[in-house]
Amino acid sequence: MTINIALLGFGTVASGVPFLLKENTEKIQQAAQENIQVAKVLVKDQAEKERLLAAGHDYHFVTNIDDILSDDTIQIVVELMGRIEPAKTFISRALEAGKHVVTANKDLLAVHGSELRELAVNNGVALYYEAAVAGGIPILRTLANSLTSDKVTRVLGVLNGTSNFMMTKMVDEGWTYDEALKTAQELGYAESDPTNDVEGIDAAYKAVILSQFAFGMTIDFEQVAHKGISGITPEDVAVAQELGYVIKLVGDIQETTSGIAAEVSPTFLPKSHPLASVNGVMNAVFVESIGIGESMYYGPGAGQKPTATSVVADIVRIVRRLNDKTVGKAFNEYSRPLQLAKPEDVVSEYYFSILAPDKTGTLLRLAEIFNSESISFKQILQAASLGDQARVVIVTHAMSKTQLENVQAKLAAAEAVEVQNTFKVLGD
Amino acid sequence: MTINIALLGFGTVASGVPFLLKENTEKIQQAAQENIQVAKVLVKDQAEKERLLAAGHDYHFVTNIDDILSDDTIQIVVELMGRIEPAKTFISRALEAGKHVVTANKDLLAVHGSELRELAVNNGVALYYEAAVAGGIPILRTLANSLTSDKVTRVLGVLNGTSNFMMTKMVDEGWTYDEALKTAQELGYAESDPTNDVEGIDAAYKAVILSQFAFGMTIDFEQVAHKGISGITPEDVAVAQELGYVIKLVGDIQETTSGIAAEVSPTFLPKSHPLASVNGVMNAVFVESIGIGESMYYGPGAGQKPTATSVVADIVRIVRRLNDKTVGKAFNEYSRPLQLAKPEDVVSEYYFSILAPDKTGTLLRLAEIFNSESISFKQILQAASLGDQARVVIVTHAMSKTQLENVQAKLAAAEAVEVQNTFKVLGD
Repeated sequence: MTINIALLGFGTVASGVPFLLKENTEKIQQAAQENIQVAKVLVKDQAEKERLLAAGHDYHFVTNIDDILSDDTIQIVVELMGRIEPAKTFISRALEAGKHVVTANKDLLAVHGSELRELAVNNGVALYYEAAVAGGIPILRTLANSLTSDKVTRVLGVLNGTSNFMMTKMVDEGWTYDEALKTAQELGYAESDPTNDVEGIDAAYKAVILSQFAFGMTIDFEQVAHKGISGITPEDVAVAQELGYVIKLVGDIQETTSGIAAEVSPTFLPKSHPLASVNGVMNAVFVESIGIGESMYYGPGAGQKPTATSVVADIVRIVRRLNDKTVGKAFNEYSRPLQLAKPEDVVSEYYFSILAPDKTGTLLRLAEIFNSESISFKQILQAASLGDQARVVIVTHAMSKTQLENVQAKLAAAEAVEVQNTFKVLGD
Repeated sequence: MTINIALLGFGTVASGVPFLLKENTEKIQQAAQENIQVAKVLVKDQAEKERLLAAGHDYHFVTNIDDILSDDTIQIVVELMGRIEPAKTFISRALEAGKHVVTANKDLLAVHGSELRELAVNNGVALYYEAAVAGGIPILRTLANSLTSDKVTRVLGVLNGTSNFMMTKMVDEGWTYDEALKTAQELGYAESDPTNDVEGIDAAYKAVILSQFAFGMTIDFEQVAHKGISGITPEDVAVAQELGYVIKLVGDIQETTSGIAAEVSPTFLPKSHPLASVNGVMNAVFVESIGIGESMYYGPGAGQKPTATSVVADIVRIVRRLNDKTVGKAFNEYSRPLQLAKPEDVVSEYYFSILAPDKTGTLLRLAEIFNSESISFKQILQAASLGDQARVVIVTHAMSKTQLENVQAKLAAAEAVEVQNTFKVLGD
C-alpha cells in the first residue's frame, strides 16, 4: 500500500523530506511497512508554484490548503512553514479533518501546544514534532520511550545553534559579540533580526517542549526566564577561561522540592563538563536522572537533512501505528500538574563582574553586602584597574534566586558600585 | 491490572530493577498503563536464598527455573545472570513457554543472538536487550525508532568503561598500562582476569549487536577484529598528545561500497572529536549518517541503576505492547543480508611506532618500504634516540587494510627494523 503525505511549505527543510524518502527508500519501507509518497505540496502562490516547476521540482503543487484537506487519499500532513500563522490554522484544520500531523514548528508548539495536542487527541489523530527541539537529535522520542523508567531531575541544553556558533567564536577566537554576530549573519546562521536566537527566545521555546517530555509538566513560555548573550563582554569570556569555565547559552530545567524551574541564560560551564565541548552550530541535551545518572544527546540543531530526518522518523512512526491500529496516542504521555519551583528552592553559584572604586575598603564593602544575604565567595579576583575604578570578579557559593534578587537590589543601591554582568555558574 | 515479572539472578543490576519500580512508580505506571510487580526471583541455591532473606530482601525467591516457567501469572522474564550458560537455556525455555524476555546479556546475544531472536519470533514473544550495549545509553531503541529514516554510514563507539577508565588515566595522568589496570581492579571496574575488557572482546560483543541495529546486518563475533589496549606504551600516549590526538579503545563499524567492516582497536582520535572527551567509565556512541550527519549518545556504560533503567524501559515497552496487542515484533526490524567489506575498501590513516638503527639512510629505507605500497606520510617524527636505535613515529595518509597488511609484512621482513605498535588514526 502507499501512504500519501502532503507537505505544507517547500523551503529548505521540506525539500529534505523527499530527499530522504528517495535516498533511503529500502530502509524506510522496511520500517514503515508501506511506501510513503509526497502526494501534494502547498506553496504560497502561483508565482512560487511556477518557479518551483521551472526549477524542475516534479510535485503536485497546490496553493489552496483545501486541496489537501479535502483529499481523502492524504493521511499525513507535514507542516514546515514555521511561524504562528497560517501554520496554526492549517494544522488545526488538518487535525479536525482527521489527518495526522508532523511539524517542526517550535514557536507554535511552545505557545499553542496544549490547544493543538488536545485537538489531536479529540480527533484521534497523531501530532508529532521530534524536529521541534534540537533538530536532528532524537531527544523527544528518547525521553518519551527510553527514559520512561527513569526520573529526570535536570535537563541542561545547548539548544540554539546560532548563539552557540557565536559563543564558540567569542571563546575560541576572542571575537566580540558584534564580530560574531556579523559573521553568523554572513554565513546565514543568523537572521537580519537575530533577536530570537541571541536573546534566548528560541531556546526558551524548546525548553517549554522539553519540560513536557522530561518532567510531564506544561510550562507557559512566559514562565521560562530568558536572558541572551548580547551583554557578554570579551572580559567575561577571558575571566571565565582563567577560572576554568566556558560560557555558553544554556537552557536549564530542573525539578526542586517545590516544583520545576526553567530558564535560558549564559552559563559558566566547567571545562570538563560534556556540554562545554559542544561547539559551533551543534546542539546537545544533557540529562541528569536518578536511574541513568548523566547522559547526553548531541547532534546538529538545525539544517535541512537533520531536521528532515526527524520529520521522516515521525512519519514512519505514524505509518507503523496506522498499521498497528494504535495511532492517535499522544506523542508524550507523561503528564503531571504544573508546579513551579519557589525562588528560594532554585539554587546556583553565580558570577558577578562589578566596577567599584579602586581604593581601600571597596572589597570589604562588597563582602559586607554579600555577607548580609548569607552569600559566601568561592573565588574572587580583582581583574583590572581602570583609572580610579577596579573590576572585581566574584564567583559565589550556591545561593537561591531569592538571595540573588536581594543582593542584586543591594548592589544596585550601593554608592559607586556598578554590576556589569551576573551569570549562572554550574558547579563541578 | 498487575503485570508479574520474574528476575533470573539477584546481583547488582537485578536489585536495581525493584529500586526503579519503587522510586519511580507513578511515571512507570503512567507509561506502562499497568502496575509492574516482581513476582519471583531465581537465585542459585538455598544458601543464597537464605542469605538474601536474612538481609531483609522481601521477595519470593526460588531456586528452580521451573517454578517460574510453569507460573502462568508471570508474563515477563528478566535475565540478569550474565555469561552463556545457564542463561541461554533459561531464556530459550522462557521464550518457548510464551514468556517475554528482557536481558542485558551481551555475550549471549553476540554469540547466540540469531537463534534466540528466531525463537522469540516463532513463539510470538518479545526479546528486548537495550541494556546489552552501553548500559544506560538508550542507543539500540534510538537506532531502531528514531534513525529508521536515516542511513547510517559509520558507528564509532567508546563501548567499554573499564578500558576507557584505564586509557583516561594513561592519557591524563601518564600512568602505565599496569598501573591503570591495578587501580581499575582495586576500584572494582576490572575483574581479576581482565581479558574481556582490556583486549576488546567485550566491546566486540557490543559491536556485533550495534551492527544489527545500525546496518541491519548480523555479523559473527569472529568477523569483528579486536585488538586491546595492553600493548599501548606511555611513549605512544605521549606522541599521540604531541600530535593532537587522544588514544581510546574504539569500536568501529562502517559500511563501504562492498559491505560492512567491524573492528575494535586502540584509535587515535583528534582532540576536537566529540569521542575524545568521553572520559572515565563513561561510554558513547558516535553515529555518522546521511541524514543527521553526526550525532552522539553519551552516558554510563555499566552500573546498577543505569543498566536497570534500560531493563525497565524494555519491560515498560513490552507491557505497552501487550496492551496495544502488538507484542512479539522484533526489537530490531532492520534486516539485510550480511555483506562484508573487501579489505581494499576499508580505509584509514595509521600510526606506526618503529625502532630502527639510528644512522644515515634509515628514514630513507623506511620511506622506500611505505612508498612501495603507495602509502604516503602525513606526519613523521624521530621521537627519541635509544643508544644506537631510534624510535621513528609515522602517521600515514589514508590506506586500505590490504596496503596495511602488505606494508606490515615488508616491515617485519626488513632487517633491523622493529615495529613496536600500529594503531588506527581517525582523520580530522
